[in-house]
Amino acid sequence: MTHDMHPQRWGDAAHAEPLPASTRELVELAFGAVDTPAVDSVTMPSSELAAHLLGTLADIVGPEHVHVDDHTRRLRTRGKSTPDLLKARAGDVSDAPDAVVRPASADEVDALLGWAAEHHVAVVPFGGGTSVTGGLVAAREGFAGLVSIDLVRMDQLLEVDPVSMTARLQPGMRGPQAEAALAEHGLRLGHFPQSFEYATIGGFAATRSSGQNSAGFGRFDQMVVGLRLATPAGELVAGSSPANAAGPDLRQLVLGSEGTFGIITEVTVRVRPAANETAYEAWRFESFTAGRDAMRHLAQNQILPTIIRLSDETETALNLASQSDVGGEGVTGCLMIVGHEGASIDGRRELIASTLTDLGGSSLGEDRGQSWLEGRFHAPYLRDSMLDVGVLVETMETATFWSNADRLYTDVKAALEASLGEGSIVLCHVSHVYETGCSLYFTIATSSGDDPLGRWIAAKSAASDAMIDAGATITHHHAVGTDHKPWLAREIGPVGVAMLRGVKDAVDPTGILNPGILIP
Amino acid sequence: MTHDMHPQRWGDAAHAEPLPASTRELVELAFGAVDTPAVDSVTMPSSELAAHLLGTLADIVGPEHVHVDDHTRRLRTRGKSTPDLLKARAGDVSDAPDAVVRPASADEVDALLGWAAEHHVAVVPFGGGTSVTGGLVAAREGFAGLVSIDLVRMDQLLEVDPVSMTARLQPGMRGPQAEAALAEHGLRLGHFPQSFEYATIGGFAATRSSGQNSAGFGRFDQMVVGLRLATPAGELVAGSSPANAAGPDLRQLVLGSEGTFGIITEVTVRVRPAANETAYEAWRFESFTAGRDAMRHLAQNQILPTIIRLSDETETALNLASQSDVGGEGVTGCLMIVGHEGASIDGRRELIASTLTDLGGSSLGEDRGQSWLEGRFHAPYLRDSMLDVGVLVETMETATFWSNADRLYTDVKAALEASLGEGSIVLCHVSHVYETGCSLYFTIATSSGDDPLGRWIAAKSAASDAMIDAGATITHHHAVGTDHKPWLAREIGPVGVAMLRGVKDAVDPTGILNPGILIP
Repeated sequence: MTHDMHPQRWGDAAHAEPLPASTRELVELAFGAVDTPAVDSVTMPSSELAAHLLGTLADIVGPEHVHVDDHTRRLRTRGKSTPDLLKARAGDVSDAPDAVVRPASADEVDALLGWAAEHHVAVVPFGGGTSVTGGLVAAREGFAGLVSIDLVRMDQLLEVDPVSMTARLQPGMRGPQAEAALAEHGLRLGHFPQSFEYATIGGFAATRSSGQNSAGFGRFDQMVVGLRLATPAGELVAGSSPANAAGPDLRQLVLGSEGTFGIITEVTVRVRPAANETAYEAWRFESFTAGRDAMRHLAQNQILPTIIRLSDETETALNLASQSDVGGEGVTGCLMIVGHEGASIDGRRELIASTLTDLGGSSLGEDRGQSWLEGRFHAPYLRDSMLDVGVLVETMETATFWSNADRLYTDVKAALEASLGEGSIVLCHVSHVYETGCSLYFTIATSSGDDPLGRWIAAKSAASDAMIDAGATITHHHAVGTDHKPWLAREIGPVGVAMLRGVKDAVDPTGILNPGILIP
Repeated sequence: MTHDMHPQRWGDAAHAEPLPASTRELVELAFGAVDTPAVDSVTMPSSELAAHLLGTLADIVGPEHVHVDDHTRRLRTRGKSTPDLLKARAGDVSDAPDAVVRPASADEVDALLGWAAEHHVAVVPFGGGTSVTGGLVAAREGFAGLVSIDLVRMDQLLEVDPVSMTARLQPGMRGPQAEAALAEHGLRLGHFPQSFEYATIGGFAATRSSGQNSAGFGRFDQMVVGLRLATPAGELVAGSSPANAAGPDLRQLVLGSEGTFGIITEVTVRVRPAANETAYEAWRFESFTAGRDAMRHLAQNQILPTIIRLSDETETALNLASQSDVGGEGVTGCLMIVGHEGASIDGRRELIASTLTDLGGSSLGEDRGQSWLEGRFHAPYLRDSMLDVGVLVETMETATFWSNADRLYTDVKAALEASLGEGSIVLCHVSHVYETGCSLYFTIATSSGDDPLGRWIAAKSAASDAMIDAGATITHHHAVGTDHKPWLAREIGPVGVAMLRGVKDAVDPTGILNPGILIP
């Protein structure tokens, strides 16, 4: 796996396989698919950064770490949201940065921010480039230029504290790098979002990421016990203790700030021992409601497994059709995946199994659970393969309290179906549960048509309106970026927005940090 | 129990008993105690609020809820920090508010803040008045007056959601009121700080409170899923979902803001079923280090009881001397209290007991555990009884990561012993544990001498310097108030302070909210 993703697709081009013929036939039947190749050649806008500014940049990081060539700039143009991909496929590279710089240390990041503030150059921090919400599309108007600060060189495990069970990590470490480095100490972080293979520690923190193991390991914001943030006003070092009453928790103000308050230069995380045992099981419930009730029971009785997910009836049926290799009986009703990881999992596994059985669940054994595990990072590749044949696949996610989950599910699904029209599909699963509520993760597939971006905007707006109208959040774990900004404004209201702006103005008075992202 | 505390003492005057003769003898022997009665009569400063302002106040809350009489104002003068008590006992009531107003609703609080901003009147929110860090001593200079906004009338349980297991509470509910109201629904909150009998839901939130059951129930900031905050800029309603990635978590920005960003008018909390079973046990460990290692093992293996506490050798010996009524053998080494509460506690109780035994612990049975439970809210009364006989008793607390706990303990203890000199005692216990670290709670007793406030300032400064120098927090759960401000500035640094000021300026541009509190 290379570090850079393909400029027009998710991940490594070597993994980007066309759809198998049988799937292609199904897709053609369902959506009237037609080959829709991406535009091959693009014309990069020239770098507009003045020569003397490039010189002073080189003074900070060394000339070999300042890149203005077309190839490098193209690889740092936008992220992987659907609008990002549609623009990239159409050959639109208008959001390219003027330069890509690669600092080696927190001090260099600090100096870069001083440089940017002095010369009024906008900066976009770059980790894995996996944003699916437009988090890398900074608004460059009014600035002397736009520079991508690529944290790829800051990729070291700095320190392990085996007594406190914490580790200090640099922000540019990708998920697999972090797990590999910790594994050498017999430890693990246990954070596996779908973007795991490319996304970075700094990005997990900046976006309040939540991984598939959240039932057992918590969200990334629950793993972070300390961090360093470089801002134009100086450095914040937060995390004197696991928890305290020394004013508002500033760690929680940095987590989710998406590069608008500063650049995260170090993250101290809680770690746990590497797992000795793992087991993945599938379960069947009669309905999405019955399955959610079972999840709620586990969460409210503090007997959660490491991973728990539940597909609605439609997603269950589709998973079945696409996983005929798994074997076994066809599944009706709703499929639940239950994963256990730890030093000794038997006791809890048995308790959860008997509880799920009591609540109406039927065990489907381990094959389907294992199959989910093996394909867990694959879905983003499928989105590209579908775009290749003119089918728009998108995911949207939200969260609410348990008593509101049914309304939220019904409303968002109805809004999507109304917007997409006949011949489209809307799937949903619960991927994260809490004592008081859960997330809902929707997947849609529809014909791209003549105006895929227009179709996307209409569906996205309809779903987002439904989420906010239902009193839910605009995003459980995809973050805000540019795509969710209008709905964030509604979710937190004008006082919430004023608070974010207040912090921003205090540490970034000239507004150079990721302008246009997050803050409405 | 009345709602108002005695103006010069903790709690209800009816509970303020003189020391028993035997204890008094011991105290005399140890500290050379002398009777030091409080000044009986005080002269209240007259209310300086102009008549037309009182009139407009009355328009908002009704004339019967605006109080300018000496008695009511005296009861809202300061909190219960040691400097607060020393000043009150000396007859100093110079921090009295000009009026006490009692709003009945979030709308009335909102109108009061509009009124205060318009007339440049400083406001101090008042819940239980239990602050031990000077959180109620607002700086009135430059304002047209100082008004205490007493939330006592906002004391209702507004709604229970038994599906989501949440409850909406008004901020003026005291701990016992909240638990009693929830008990009618078969629920409980499970938050028991030492101030429980008087402190309020709003105060728990505003100070990031942590209760004695934190191992089982979490800190108050982990219980809050939603809140409403009235600010001069309008209302913030936070909490769309249990957790999300919609920017920084604004709940965590309000929690710990100590009335400086706004007044909390509603809190939605996670609740749990009322406990069917409880058991409290005592255990003995050979040393403070061995006991902490056992706590760490339980925390890092996620097998914590509901309550776990550990006294150091000195505190263990003193507890023994003062609890001779408990019976049983004398305890050397270190005393650990382990409490279990829940629907069915046996399984976990046995697992923890066998683990503690494996780690070198010896069970001391249930009597001592039960005795701790019965006296859990009594210590603040003892502080007053000791002041009556010229002995200064104070508590100071901090938290750090496990690998730093020994250094922190040694350094703070040494700093206190050096400052207090011969004939003083310094005790410590661990009251809160996390996977990555723990709190340390110090209790000191020393002769008040001629200048008790001077002795207090010297000891407090020495301990606080030692905490910050050791990289720990200035407060694990007592909050910042005025007493901890200089050390908060060191803990979070200038960028952290700038962030807090940025938020403050955004929502309270004229600075009327609790001026002088929290923000350095």
